[in-house]
Amino acid sequence: MELNSASKEQLAQWEQDLAAEYQAIKAKQLNLDLTRGKPSSEQLSLSDAMDGILNGDYKTADGTDTRNYGGLDGIAEIQAIGAEILTAPVENVLAGGNSSLTLMHQAMSVAYFFGLNGADSAWSKESTVKFLCPVPGYDRHFAVCEHLGIEMVTVPMTANGPDMDVVEKLVAEDHAIKGMWCVPKYSNPTGVVYSDETVQRIAALGKVAAANFRVFWDNAYGVHDLSAEPVALASIFDACKAAGTEDSVLQFASTSKITFAGAGVAFMAASSANLAGFKKSLGFMTIGPDKINQLRHAKFFAAPGSLKAHMEKHAAIIKPRFASVLSHLEEAFGNNDLGQWESADGGYFISFDTRPGLAKEVVKLAGEAGVKLTPAGATFPYGNDPQDANIRIAPTVPTVAQVDEAMKVFVTCVKLASVRQALAA
Amino acid sequence: MELNSASKEQLAQWEQDLAAEYQAIKAKQLNLDLTRGKPSSEQLSLSDAMDGILNGDYKTADGTDTRNYGGLDGIAEIQAIGAEILTAPVENVLAGGNSSLTLMHQAMSVAYFFGLNGADSAWSKESTVKFLCPVPGYDRHFAVCEHLGIEMVTVPMTANGPDMDVVEKLVAEDHAIKGMWCVPKYSNPTGVVYSDETVQRIAALGKVAAANFRVFWDNAYGVHDLSAEPVALASIFDACKAAGTEDSVLQFASTSKITFAGAGVAFMAASSANLAGFKKSLGFMTIGPDKINQLRHAKFFAAPGSLKAHMEKHAAIIKPRFASVLSHLEEAFGNNDLGQWESADGGYFISFDTRPGLAKEVVKLAGEAGVKLTPAGATFPYGNDPQDANIRIAPTVPTVAQVDEAMKVFVTCVKLASVRQALAA
Repeated sequence: MELNSASKEQLAQWEQDLAAEYQAIKAKQLNLDLTRGKPSSEQLSLSDAMDGILNGDYKTADGTDTRNYGGLDGIAEIQAIGAEILTAPVENVLAGGNSSLTLMHQAMSVAYFFGLNGADSAWSKESTVKFLCPVPGYDRHFAVCEHLGIEMVTVPMTANGPDMDVVEKLVAEDHAIKGMWCVPKYSNPTGVVYSDETVQRIAALGKVAAANFRVFWDNAYGVHDLSAEPVALASIFDACKAAGTEDSVLQFASTSKITFAGAGVAFMAASSANLAGFKKSLGFMTIGPDKINQLRHAKFFAAPGSLKAHMEKHAAIIKPRFASVLSHLEEAFGNNDLGQWESADGGYFISFDTRPGLAKEVVKLAGEAGVKLTPAGATFPYGNDPQDANIRIAPTVPTVAQVDEAMKVFVTCVKLASVRQALAA
Repeated sequence: MELNSASKEQLAQWEQDLAAEYQAIKAKQLNLDLTRGKPSSEQLSLSDAMDGILNGDYKTADGTDTRNYGGLDGIAEIQAIGAEILTAPVENVLAGGNSSLTLMHQAMSVAYFFGLNGADSAWSKESTVKFLCPVPGYDRHFAVCEHLGIEMVTVPMTANGPDMDVVEKLVAEDHAIKGMWCVPKYSNPTGVVYSDETVQRIAALGKVAAANFRVFWDNAYGVHDLSAEPVALASIFDACKAAGTEDSVLQFASTSKITFAGAGVAFMAASSANLAGFKKSLGFMTIGPDKINQLRHAKFFAAPGSLKAHMEKHAAIIKPRFASVLSHLEEAFGNNDLGQWESADGGYFISFDTRPGLAKEVVKLAGEAGVKLTPAGATFPYGNDPQDANIRIAPTVPTVAQVDEAMKVFVTCVKLASVRQALAA
């Protein structure tokens, strides 16, 4: 389908064929869902052995009774796992509750209201507070900024991460910019892994940025590889150390997509100064995290190599779903300009760009044909995709057969919307 | 010992005897601790069967997979337990993570920064924000106010709860007062249970208070009775309903001192409007609580009456410790004016008042003799007890023999400090 060179008659014919195809799909009354970036039951079952794993022994190696109060940093055994996931020194890792989103909201609230480096460093002391948001990105990140009234400035994503020329210029020129959201590996939703150069340039931002500038480095998919030989993400911690900017980055991760989505363990890695500043406020918010759940996780991943082996089991489940999405896209749009996408080697999403102005229409068409997609715009701050092009495809929850069925519908909807747009032009 | 009528010689003799007694204690090099309001290992072991209780079945009765994301309110089974503890309708109960302190900090942060009833209701919009703090009270409550920069106004505790004449006057006259901390049953630390009249008068505050006034009703010891026939606490929820002030109270509780101190389930009960206002912000902070831990709790307390039976086991462990404290106090100070205390029928603390100006000295003397006590002043905002009289005794962690030993020391220290004060007068 070459829309640009097609005649009106050809377009009309395509429209008629596709509309008929679409009606046939509608008649099937499908009920499929590609919206949720969450693990499937099959994936969750990989960790079922965690319940009962303690065998009545609630003590850590150092004798801490995990049943009782205390311990803001989490138990040593789980800090070590966090250090492995975040490639950061164990003494710079804090292990929290079940949600990295909570840790990120807490950290941003502390930075905003209380200051990570004393009250004078609180962002709220300044009249305008801005945050860089690479787009497309993760809606819940943007929502945290929105909740706190932080103005979001979008930056385009490239195949190597955020467009660093744009980022560097903005950060150096405008000290109202207090940080940037990053999902550095298998970025949500583009699946991009930040290049070594991008990691280094982000680490260097602390040299030109505002003093209280903090990158929120959400390494949510750090060990979520699909390929047997995954691209390695450079260590931002090491890069910051080399650049002398340790205080400019806060790292986050969790086991939500490793063990249990709702009952995992969240981690934060940061410089000693940042951890101290954060814990000063955290101590008002909690007496400590659920150390029993941390101990369960530590026992579950006690054997060397067990985390990697576990993630390979996830990959085996997810891979055919990703393969189905990609093969449908390739087949339908590989040799035309109706859509663009990145071929992700991990994470939970495939990001698809329609021709400008069609994302909402495609999501609507698919919805009416029984295939739920994430609302168009969700990957942009305030739900506003200025190009109305980006759609996030989340194929982990449905079965492979369902993904296949849903993608047939998706492809038809993209084609139909594109042809209609061309006809109307 | 009647200090007021004793001669100088008599006082000097007592001082000499007590100093010798104190030196003999010091020689024993004791290492005892009455500081921690936390459960003992023996108590925690009552809930050890929770690990493994799921038997591979992670689903709730309504089919929710507790392993996955979602559900801000918590699972229905655990909401029902929260409703039982807080004597509130189940639809008004939210079940959270492992810490009621976190829920309280979140609720106060929402009230302060974001508003429980829209942005205009945020306390931070006003130049001065005050909160009533019955004293002696719980240091972590006061710390939440301190963290948010809320000015604390103390109100004296009576044997029926906060002095309501004072409270009513302040609340009606000063609309900068946005709420009050309450521990209505077995109050921390006095052990007082609010009388029915007090509960009703607190429920009525909403009629004269500022529009965004919220009582923080921390019912931390709602089912923590020691007596077989405990005093019942009137339902604040019902009282508010009767008074038409449902929005003026937020209730909190947790299973921290029922199951596991660090890995329990926290609850909030509130009017529909307050819950909606709270969840509007909570949804930015988390995707949902640890539902697996909630399900474990629900299964552990599935049998009718099992919660009560479980609390009786706690009582059997705690009772001899409370009895030891009380008998030492009675024996030493029952017929003189060296100290005053309430005889608590539940909770975790016994609150003792020395003669004015002696609490710090007693804590110091005891510490030097190997008995750690909660720092004097900890039960007052900013750690400042203007009378320097209150000491919180927390006897749950040590063995009965250790409590007995520690109380002998305590009594000696109170007497010695009192006599020395009288001598110096």
